Amino acid sequence: MSSKYKELQRECYEANMQLEELKLVVYTFGNVSAVDRTEGIFAIKPSGVPYKDLKPKDMVILDYDANLVEGKLRPSSDTKTHAYLYKHWEDIGGVAHTHAMYSVAWAQAQLDIPIFGTTHADHLTSDIPCAQPMSDELIQGNYEYNTGIQILDCFKEKNLSHLETEMILIGNHGPFTWGKNADKAVYNSKVLETVAEMAYLTRQINPLAPRLKDSLIKKHYERKHGKDAYYGQ
Amino acid sequence: MSSKYKELQRECYEANMQLEELKLVVYTFGNVSAVDRTEGIFAIKPSGVPYKDLKPKDMVILDYDANLVEGKLRPSSDTKTHAYLYKHWEDIGGVAHTHAMYSVAWAQAQLDIPIFGTTHADHLTSDIPCAQPMSDELIQGNYEYNTGIQILDCFKEKNLSHLETEMILIGNHGPFTWGKNADKAVYNSKVLETVAEMAYLTRQINPLAPRLKDSLIKKHYERKHGKDAYYGQ
Amino acid sequence: MSSKYKELQRECYEANMQLEELKLVVYTFGNVSAVDRTEGIFAIKPSGVPYKDLKPKDMVILDYDANLVEGKLRPSSDTKTHAYLYKHWEDIGGVAHTHAMYSVAWAQAQLDIPIFGTTHADHLTSDIPCAQPMSDELIQGNYEYNTGIQILDCFKEKNLSHLETEMILIGNHGPFTWGKNADKAVYNSKVLETVAEMAYLTRQINPLAPRLKDSLIKKHYERKHGKDAYYGQ
Amino acid sequence: MSSKYKELQRECYEANMQLEELKLVVYTFGNVSAVDRTEGIFAIKPSGVPYKDLKPKDMVILDYDANLVEGKLRPSSDTKTHAYLYKHWEDIGGVAHTHAMYSVAWAQAQLDIPIFGTTHADHLTSDIPCAQPMSDELIQGNYEYNTGIQILDCFKEKNLSHLETEMILIGNHGPFTWGKNADKAVYNSKVLETVAEMAYLTRQINPLAPRLKDSLIKKHYERKHGKDAYYGQ
Repeated sequence: MSSKYKELQRECYEANMQLEELKLVVYTFGNVSAVDRTEGIFAIKPSGVPYKDLKPKDMVILDYDANLVEGKLRPSSDTKTHAYLYKHWEDIGGVAHTHAMYSVAWAQAQLDIPIFGTTHADHLTSDIPCAQPMSDELIQGNYEYNTGIQILDCFKEKNLSHLETEMILIGNHGPFTWGKNADKAVYNSKVLETVAEMAYLTRQINPLAPRLKDSLIKKHYERKHGKDAYYGQ
Repeated sequence: MSSKYKELQRECYEANMQLEELKLVVYTFGNVSAVDRTEGIFAIKPSGVPYKDLKPKDMVILDYDANLVEGKLRPSSDTKTHAYLYKHWEDIGGVAHTHAMYSVAWAQAQLDIPIFGTTHADHLTSDIPCAQPMSDELIQGNYEYNTGIQILDCFKEKNLSHLETEMILIGNHGPFTWGKNADKAVYNSKVLETVAEMAYLTRQINPLAPRLKDSLIKKHYERKHGKDAYYGQ
Repeated sequence: MSSKYKELQRECYEANMQLEELKLVVYTFGNVSAVDRTEGIFAIKPSGVPYKDLKPKDMVILDYDANLVEGKLRPSSDTKTHAYLYKHWEDIGGVAHTHAMYSVAWAQAQLDIPIFGTTHADHLTSDIPCAQPMSDELIQGNYEYNTGIQILDCFKEKNLSHLETEMILIGNHGPFTWGKNADKAVYNSKVLETVAEMAYLTRQINPLAPRLKDSLIKKHYERKHGKDAYYGQ
Repeated sequence: MSSKYKELQRECYEANMQLEELKLVVYTFGNVSAVDRTEGIFAIKPSGVPYKDLKPKDMVILDYDANLVEGKLRPSSDTKTHAYLYKHWEDIGGVAHTHAMYSVAWAQAQLDIPIFGTTHADHLTSDIPCAQPMSDELIQGNYEYNTGIQILDCFKEKNLSHLETEMILIGNHGPFTWGKNADKAVYNSKVLETVAEMAYLTRQINPLAPRLKDSLIKKHYERKHGKDAYYGQ
C-alpha cells in the first residue's frame, strides 16, 4: 500500500540524490527535506543510509515539532534543525545541509564569505553569514533544535531576510540552505559552494581584494530578481 | 518549418554544450554566441535554460543592436555585450562568457593575469587584461551595452589588439573571450581558465615569480601564429 | 580448486578496489588488508599489480608474523606493518594505507591535523596524530616492521586509543587507517582525506582558526558513537 | 599497405592516449614519442591533432636528427627536443612532454621540487631539477634543438644521472620525462605531476617543511629499485 506522501517523498528523494551528482557530499554527509504545507509535515532523508541504497519510500515523514508521522527508518540526525526552520519560516519549502568542502572551510574559519563578485550578487546581496558557535549550555542541551535557534538569531542580529539570503554557515560545522522547494534548496547549496571556492581563490590571489561595490550588487540582483528581471525565462 | 538560421543555431548550440563538457560552467552560468556576417545577425543561448533541456532551435537570433530577429525564448541576459562586440569588431565570429572558477577569481582580485609561461605565450603575447569595474552611472544605465564599451575602452587604454588578445576579464564579474568562430571563442575560454589556474599556482609557490622573458614570448607565439608557424597542421 | 580463504580474499579485494573509486590512489600506491581472527591470518593486495588486472584470488595470505601462508604473488611492500598492527591490536579487522593527496601533504608537513569542525568530530575526538620520522637505525633495520612499532609508540606517547582514533599519519610518508573490517578501514582513509583537505583550506583562509571547542567535540562524537547515539540506523 | 613501423606507431599512439586519461593534458598540449633502436628511428604524435581524431598510423616517423622518415602529418613542434634526447641518451626508449598543471606551476616558479616524502623517493633520490630559461641567443636560434642541450647541460651541472632521475622541468615551460619505453615515460609524467601537487600542498601547510632525510630516501628507493628490491612482481 502506497504512502499518501508518495509525491513528497519523491521530491525529497530526488533532491537528496542531486547532492551526490553535484559533488556536494561524500558518503552520507548531507541531508535534504521537503515540506507539504497543507498537511503540515515534511519528508527527510533517513540517517546514515548510503545513496545507492536509498529509495523514495525510505524518506521519513515528520511534523514541525519533529514528531514521527510515518517511516520505518531513523530520520537524519539534523532533523530538529529542519523542523525548526519549517515551523518559524512559513514561506520556505525545502532545506538542505551538506559538508561541502569550501563551505565547510569558511565555516571552520568562522568567517562570513564576502561578496566579491557578480556570481554571488546574482543570488544574494549580503555577505554569506557565518553563525558563531553556540554556548556550551545550548550545545549540551537540545543541540539540533538549538541550531535552529542559532540560525534565526544570527539572521536577526545581522538584520537579514531569509527570503533574500537563503543560506548560512554554522561556525565549525557547515552550511544550511533553503528555498521555495527542495530543489531550490539544493541549488542554493551548489551556489554557496561555488561562491565559497571563488572567494577562497580571490583572497589567495589578493588578500586585499575589495567587496563588490553597491551599484553592481544592486544591478546584478535586480536583473535576476527585481520586478523588471530579464534573467531566465 | 525549419529556420533559415538552422546551421548557425547548430554551431551556436554545439559551442554552448562544450562549456559543460569542458567544466567551464555550473548550471546555466555561461553563454556563447555565433555570428553570420552575411545576414548581419547572431545566434545566442536563451537565458536560464538548463543545458540538458537545450535544443539547437532554442538559440535566439538577434541583430547587432540586439533587436530580436527570431526566437521564442528570452536571450541570454548578457546579449547586449555580445551584440556590441559584433558591431564594433567586424572580424570576430564568436563570443563566449563563463563564470569559470580561476578566471573569476582573478577578475574578483581585479588583477591582470601575468604571462608566466609558454602555455600562455602559445596563445597571446600580452598579460590577460582585467577591466576595472565601471562607474556607477554606467552600471545604473544600459549595463550590458556599457560592458561592451568597457571592453573596448580597456583594449584602447592598454593598446591591445583584439585579434591578438582574444580574451578579457571584467573586474568583479568574469571572462569574455572571442575568436574567428564560436568554437574558437570556447577554446579561448578553456585556455584562459587553464592559464589562470597555472598563474594562480605559480604565485602561490613563488610570489616573486618573474614574467616570461620577451624572447620566449616571441618565440612561442611565432611558432604557433607567425608566418613560418610550425605548430598544428 | 578454490582457496579456503576465498571469502576473506573477496573482502580484501573489494576493499582495495574501493581505493580507486574513491580517488585515494594513483597507479598502485595503496594497499588494504583484511584479517580472519579465527584462522589467525590476513589477506593483502599483492605488490605493484595494476587495479584493472587484480583478481580476488591474487590476494596474498600471511600470518601475523608476515610469513606466507598462501599465494603466488609477492605481497604489498608494506605487509609487515599490517602484520604488526594485527598482532598487537587484536580487536581490529582491517588496515588501509594510501598516498592520498592531502593526507600525504600533512604527513610531509610533519604536523598533526587539528580538529577544526564537526566533520572531524563525527569520527574522532583527537587531532589526527602525525608520527615523527623514525631514527636512522630503525629505518636501516626492519623498516616496515619498525613502522608498526612507530605507530604504537606514537599512540602511547600521545595517550590515544586505537579504538577511538582509527588513523595516523606517518611523517614524510602517508596515512595508515584501520577499523573493525577492511571496508571500515577504507572508509576511514576517505574520512581522513576529506578532513585533511578541509583543515588545509581552513588554515589557508584563516591561519588563526581555533580548534573546535570541547563541548562540540563531545556532542558530535556522542551523537554518532555514544550509548544514546542517534546517527545511522 | 601497412607501415613497417606499425608496432612502434601503436606503442606511441597508446602512450599518447594515456595522457588524456590521466588528465595530464587539455586539448593537444602534450606529446609522447617511442623509439626503435634497431631501426634508428622514433615515432611521435603529429602536431595539433585532437586526441579523438588521432589514429596509430598518424604517428610520424623520424630519425635522431629529426629528419622525416615516414608520415603525412607535421610532427609535434617539440620534435627536435625528443630527437636530441634519443641521440644523446642511447639507453632511453620513450619521451613525454605535457603542460600538466602542477608541473607547469613549479616550472613557472623556476624552482626545483624538493624531495619531501616517500612518494617522491619511491621513484627518484634527487630533487626534481628545474632548468633555468636559456639565453636569448639560444631561444632565437634552433629553439627546440637547444632545449635538448639545455636538458643535458642541467643534468651535467647538477651532477644527475638520466637513468636515475627520469624527469626535468624546463623553466617557464613545463615537464619532460623519459624512460625505458613510451609507457614508462608517461608513467613518469604522472608521478611528477602527483609529486608536484603534494610538494605544493606541503609548502602551503608548512613553508618550513624539511626535505626527507637521507636514510629514508635511500630506504624507499632501494626497496623499489635496489638489488634486493621487494616492491612489485
